[in-house]
Formats: sequence, structure tokens, C-alpha cells
Amino acid sequence: MDQMESASSCPFCVLAGGVDSFHVESRQSDIFYRDDNIIAFISAGWWPNNPGSVLIIPKTHHHNIYNIPKTLYDAVNEFGRRLAVIMKREYECDGISFRQHNEAAGGQSVEHSHLWVFPRYQNDRLYQLYAEGAVVPVEMRNQYARRLEKHFQ
Amino acid sequence: MDQMESASSCPFCVLAGGVDSFHVESRQSDIFYRDDNIIAFISAGWWPNNPGSVLIIPKTHHHNIYNIPKTLYDAVNEFGRRLAVIMKREYECDGISFRQHNEAAGGQSVEHSHLWVFPRYQNDRLYQLYAEGAVVPVEMRNQYARRLEKHFQ
Repeated sequence: MDQMESASSCPFCVLAGGVDSFHVESRQSDIFYRDDNIIAFISAGWWPNNPGSVLIIPKTHHHNIYNIPKTLYDAVNEFGRRLAVIMKREYECDGISFRQHNEAAGGQSVEHSHLWVFPRYQNDRLYQLYAEGAVVPVEMRNQYARRLEKHFQ
Repeated sequence: MDQMESASSCPFCVLAGGVDSFHVESRQSDIFYRDDNIIAFISAGWWPNNPGSVLIIPKTHHHNIYNIPKTLYDAVNEFGRRLAVIMKREYECDGISFRQHNEAAGGQSVEHSHLWVFPRYQNDRLYQLYAEGAVVPVEMRNQYARRLEKHFQ
């Protein structure tokens, strides 16, 4: 378990710890849900036709799902499907996709286990436009964070 | 719940029910794991650099995760990460990716909830090669099914 070693330098741990950082991923205002086990926030990186995708992470540092505690893994997954239903209604999207990557070769860019929830639309070409992912301004992200937040209050 | 209506025509229900069909997805020999809640089998569709990907499904018919019973959702996810560890060792891959799509717009091609587990390799370009997915012969799939099967006996 690498919790103690990595917490200080991991941008997701910084975020979960309630601190802003200079990393674009680490703004408290992106967070729209928080409980004892997890936080959920709008991803800084977007694809052209799928704005407002969400990252769900355990609050404690675990690199990936290979040996994450079952309680945290279940909490992330259960929130994922709760969010799927809410996102469908709030975004009025046509489907929901989950992606969960482990290790750099698997597409994991931040070494803190996360489940990525995407709103999907007819012909959105999410995978075909893979190279067009880009970080968007926090103001754009916040609009989506506030839209989701109201469903959890 | 659409279990009764769809079971007779759903290729994954046919597969879970122990019957071969003319669909390439529905060969019993693709299955390498079965318990009271789920089955797991080698996907008929492959991408060039990621052979032997796996589909995990609940045995009963549920279109997607929006309202699947929690017991089945948890069983699929827990087997997913158990498989991830085994696949890493058996395939000697560099990472693992999960994909879980809901509804046609979300990329769901078979209307029976499934979690897709991919072996990942350095520079495999899984997403960039999205258009190159193709069905492979059952003999190729079976090699991978037998490699995974031995870890669950």
C-alpha cells in the first residue's frame, strides 16, 4: 500500500484533502460530491462532444484497483451508477460510458485510482476523437459541477 | 425489468443459458468462468493489439447498470478486478482497462449489461484503432479462454 508515500505529491490526494493547487485538476470548485469514502468532480480534460465528464475517486491514495480495499472499490462503483442515472436526466444525454484504466500503459494518467463517467450522445465519436481531448477552463467545468451538485443536496 | 421479454432473443442470455447459437458471440467454449451470478468469456470482437479481452455479464437479463440488482452489479465488478490481477500475470500485459457502456449511444452493442476487460500494452493505441475492431475465429478465442480458465479451477 502506497498511501503514505504518495499522498503529498498526488494531485488527486491534494484535491481530496480540501486544498487547491496549481494543477488544473485540483480545484475545489470542480467537486460536486463528497462523503467519508469518495469524492466526485468534473474532469479538467474534455472531449469535444462529451462535456462535463466526471471522475470518482477514493479519498485515500491507491494507485489502481488491483488491491484497493473492497469498501472503497464498491463505494466508487455504486456512486458511479447512481451518478449515471442523474447524469442522464440532468444532461439529457443518450447513454453513459464508464472507463477505468490501470497503469500508464492502460491509459491511466494520474496514479490515484479513478472511475471516469462520460455522458454519451448519438454519434459523439468519443473514441475516434481521442486525440482531441483538451483541458478546459475551470469556469466551464463549474457550470457542470453545480448542475450535478444540486442532485446530492 | 425486462428479463422475461428479452431472454429468448438476447445472445448473451442464450450463452449464459448453456446453449450455442449461430451468433459468433454465443459459443460455450468462449466461457472460462461461471458461478451463480455471472459468466465470463472471451469477447468475439478484438482490436489489433489487445487480443483476449473479456466480457463479464450477469446471468440474468438486465439491459444496463441503471437498475441492475446491486448483488449482480457488485458480482460483475468484483470479478472484474479479480480477473485484472490474473490477466496481468497470465497475459504479461502492462495494464488493464475496463469499459462499461450503457445504451446504443454509449457504445453498447448487445443489450445485456456487460463489463469489458482489456489487457493493455505499451503503445497499443486501443482507442485510436477503434475502427479496426473485428470478430476473430473461435479457435483464436479459445486459446485465451483456456489460459484464463486454469486460474479459476
